[in-house]
Amino acid sequence: MQKYLPILTWGRHYNKAAFSSDIIAALIVTIMLIPQSLAYALLAGLPPQAGLYASIAPIILYTIFGTSRALAVGPVAVISLMTAATLGNIVEQGAMGYAIAALTLAFLSGVILLAMGVFKLGFLANFLSHPVIAGFITASGVIIATSQLKNIFGVDASGHNLLELVVSLFEHLGEINWITFVLGASTTAFLFWVRKGMKPMLRARGLTAGAADVATKAGPVLAVVVTTLVVWAFDLSAKGVKIVGDVPQSLPPLTMPDVSMNLMTLLFVPALLISIIGFVESISVAQTLAAKKRQRIDPNQELIGLGAANVGAAFTGGFPVTGGFSRSVVNFDAGAETPAAGAFTAVGLAIAALALTPLIFFLPKATLAATIIVAVLSLVDFSILKRSWGYSKADFFAVLTTIVLTLGMGVEVGVTAGVILSIFLHLHKTTKPHIAEVGLVPNTQHFRNTLRHDVQTVPHVLSLRIDESLYFANAKFLEDYLYDRVAGDTPIKHVVLMGSAINEVDLSALESLEAINERLDAMGVKLHFSEIKGPVMDRLKREHFLDDLTGQVFLCQYDAYVTLK
Amino acid sequence: MQKYLPILTWGRHYNKAAFSSDIIAALIVTIMLIPQSLAYALLAGLPPQAGLYASIAPIILYTIFGTSRALAVGPVAVISLMTAATLGNIVEQGAMGYAIAALTLAFLSGVILLAMGVFKLGFLANFLSHPVIAGFITASGVIIATSQLKNIFGVDASGHNLLELVVSLFEHLGEINWITFVLGASTTAFLFWVRKGMKPMLRARGLTAGAADVATKAGPVLAVVVTTLVVWAFDLSAKGVKIVGDVPQSLPPLTMPDVSMNLMTLLFVPALLISIIGFVESISVAQTLAAKKRQRIDPNQELIGLGAANVGAAFTGGFPVTGGFSRSVVNFDAGAETPAAGAFTAVGLAIAALALTPLIFFLPKATLAATIIVAVLSLVDFSILKRSWGYSKADFFAVLTTIVLTLGMGVEVGVTAGVILSIFLHLHKTTKPHIAEVGLVPNTQHFRNTLRHDVQTVPHVLSLRIDESLYFANAKFLEDYLYDRVAGDTPIKHVVLMGSAINEVDLSALESLEAINERLDAMGVKLHFSEIKGPVMDRLKREHFLDDLTGQVFLCQYDAYVTLK
Repeated sequence: MQKYLPILTWGRHYNKAAFSSDIIAALIVTIMLIPQSLAYALLAGLPPQAGLYASIAPIILYTIFGTSRALAVGPVAVISLMTAATLGNIVEQGAMGYAIAALTLAFLSGVILLAMGVFKLGFLANFLSHPVIAGFITASGVIIATSQLKNIFGVDASGHNLLELVVSLFEHLGEINWITFVLGASTTAFLFWVRKGMKPMLRARGLTAGAADVATKAGPVLAVVVTTLVVWAFDLSAKGVKIVGDVPQSLPPLTMPDVSMNLMTLLFVPALLISIIGFVESISVAQTLAAKKRQRIDPNQELIGLGAANVGAAFTGGFPVTGGFSRSVVNFDAGAETPAAGAFTAVGLAIAALALTPLIFFLPKATLAATIIVAVLSLVDFSILKRSWGYSKADFFAVLTTIVLTLGMGVEVGVTAGVILSIFLHLHKTTKPHIAEVGLVPNTQHFRNTLRHDVQTVPHVLSLRIDESLYFANAKFLEDYLYDRVAGDTPIKHVVLMGSAINEVDLSALESLEAINERLDAMGVKLHFSEIKGPVMDRLKREHFLDDLTGQVFLCQYDAYVTLK
Repeated sequence: MQKYLPILTWGRHYNKAAFSSDIIAALIVTIMLIPQSLAYALLAGLPPQAGLYASIAPIILYTIFGTSRALAVGPVAVISLMTAATLGNIVEQGAMGYAIAALTLAFLSGVILLAMGVFKLGFLANFLSHPVIAGFITASGVIIATSQLKNIFGVDASGHNLLELVVSLFEHLGEINWITFVLGASTTAFLFWVRKGMKPMLRARGLTAGAADVATKAGPVLAVVVTTLVVWAFDLSAKGVKIVGDVPQSLPPLTMPDVSMNLMTLLFVPALLISIIGFVESISVAQTLAAKKRQRIDPNQELIGLGAANVGAAFTGGFPVTGGFSRSVVNFDAGAETPAAGAFTAVGLAIAALALTPLIFFLPKATLAATIIVAVLSLVDFSILKRSWGYSKADFFAVLTTIVLTLGMGVEVGVTAGVILSIFLHLHKTTKPHIAEVGLVPNTQHFRNTLRHDVQTVPHVLSLRIDESLYFANAKFLEDYLYDRVAGDTPIKHVVLMGSAINEVDLSALESLEAINERLDAMGVKLHFSEIKGPVMDRLKREHFLDDLTGQVFLCQYDAYVTLK
């Protein structure tokens, strides 16, 4: 029971000290989340209040089911972009069906996450390699920032990929609203300065690190307050500056996703991608923070926590959510002790949704766009291209493909292609395994590659170390390699296959080994094995192959060498 | 030049002895191929002469470009079934467009094979594991045999999978034509007896093995001759026995495939599957026969040979072809010395197409159906289910899925699902690698699993042998495993990762190793490596990981043990 409701574990020991830590963290996170939630709703193509709603019920549900003590769940940039991309293909932004489809997407994504948690399929997320994730997030950041430029320029522009977005922006550049532009550009510049320049300045003026940090987090709130006042004072909305406008004063409403087969079928693949990417983002944040306090994260329980959060979002007017990086770090740094900090944040946001929404009537959309741009540009990091180029070409091509296709054809195509390509490149490497001829390193019992080390060999014994598991994709290669190697080398009387790197022999490979055994026998050459590992040996014993083997199985290569030399 | 035109190699040394061997083999193969070609055309839903045409130009082109000395190219059962399944979904059988679409399928398949040959993509065929192929061929055999029962019963029946076929047969069973049934059933029984009972009988009556063999191969021809005469003599076609009817007396006509984008798009995936399955069938026959004479097959050149053959089929009224098992074995056994035997076979079939077609006017379709049924039932072998169950559950599930889906949903779905499942199961195994704690085997320098062997260890050194390459799909698992293992075991001061089975460390895994190094350091534990292989070491040296390592890299595990104990 405690395993499935982690709240029972930490809730039992909840005390006053934890409470006061949690309350302070919640206050800071709430202040930070208000503009962020509104902005990500805008990015997802939804009315601003959806961002607040998506942060309330989901946080509470994660508090009950999640295992991370610092993770803050809610709308995040990449998932909001994926939501917009998915729904943009299906229904027009702003249309009535759009908000319902967003609920459905959250619902489906929640159900998928719950199913993955129950069936322990969290390992699927491992197929997203680090470089593919890095490339995907970088490319998404570029797209998100570009998509928000229209709000900075005060023009209409749209597009599903980078090229369309840029072309559309240029086409509409004549309609630029200069007041919006000045407001948007100066807010963007201010927020960049808050990130880069303000903190050192405050420290130099004698503030403590903690106080400087809090002040930095309050930067976006300050920008919201100031630009709202400016728009109100000078009546700029009459001069074409787009504002947030009427936002209902309400707690999250009870909503129903559209569960028609038709819509569910259309949304299934996007929901799956959103689930997996959201899970990967969330779990990596959770594990990084947990490690700092020597806490453990249970990935399958995390799936359940995030699944519950998304189902919650679906029934309370939200859209797909996950654990966000920046807000979780703020939560952690602000001293959150338990998931209760999340619950208190939810209360704070509920109060905001009830009481503060009239105050943001005059909030310009340009300010929200500036918040998004500054937040996502910190995610953009092309250095993964350089690093992977230096380390491994396979990783490089997977990253490059992910970035190019995400920018050129959209987020879904980009990440799918990255995953498929990295799996294919991995498999491809295993189809032509590295095979080393090994000899004895003098004065040891250790065997190494004859080409790299100065080792002892005898001409009538060929010792091969096959650096790969033997399975269907390379079984044929091994056959071909052995015939070619042995056919031209008449002194060879014994072939020893050193099994230290063979972790599996599947049925295809077993059949190839049988063929090799027979054909080497026909050439008058005996086939031996050494260092076959326990699990492989167990498997081989189920068939008659070892009985038919012309040679022997040695515990270690040294035994084989001494016996046969 | 010789590499791309193998004919230049063997053609130069061609002599009278080889000529007479080849002529005899060609004669035997021609006699065998006439009924077989007609029957496979029927199976593919095409007029009988298409089977002859598909055996003439393709054989000659393979003679020029192929590398196998015994392979006989032409229509084969599984590829004909796949052709019928593909075209049946697109155009109605017997319709005018059907024959054109068959040409297009051959053309596309030829182009795909040529492209695979030029770009050296033959390795792709390795992803069809032996068990998946065995399951696929068995299931196809069952479908083919069932689909031919309608010709034995003399009824109309159709269906894309086993269930539909069986249901359709039962629905039409009332319309059974008893004369057809007697003719078909007795021919089938006769052909089975020829395969199983006649050869031993002939041997017992004093015939040599060779002569008995030739007589056996002539069985289908005898059946053709006798049933044709019976139908003609008793005018059975007037009594509802379906006959082959008018077949034009002609050499293969010059035909043009329909290369419209629309049709090519529809046929691309089926053509790809046909190409790969045809290639796999062909290359395994070619390699089996080549090995018997210590000859070499070049897989990429084989792709070019088969590609040319299919393009040839497309322009001469044929349909997709590949190297067939039974005809190649007959060719080999009959003593074919060079690919010229194939060319002579083509001449024989051309003569048949020109001169013999009027003679088969009264040939009953039931006889052809009997030929197909007897041929394909020899392919049906469910023992792969039992063998894979005993050896490896992953192989078993791949086979079972292939068989069930091929029977239930058709050949394309079946083989695709089999391939995808076997790749997935292979990857899945690598996501949670076997990790052994190792210790020193007394009186050796060899290290083995502490759970399986009686070995020496010291409590402050944890030596782990990770039995898998480290890559994105298991990087996280390794992190989790190590923290869990080390966190609860305070005496541990050193962790040695033994790299004998680590064949790759990709960028994701490198980042995990960096994280492990840092976190173990925070726990006061040093991380060491031993037995890192050359290629992996080269890779690791490109980054600063080895400089940041808290411990050392040892050449062998014994050094690590002696130094740290």
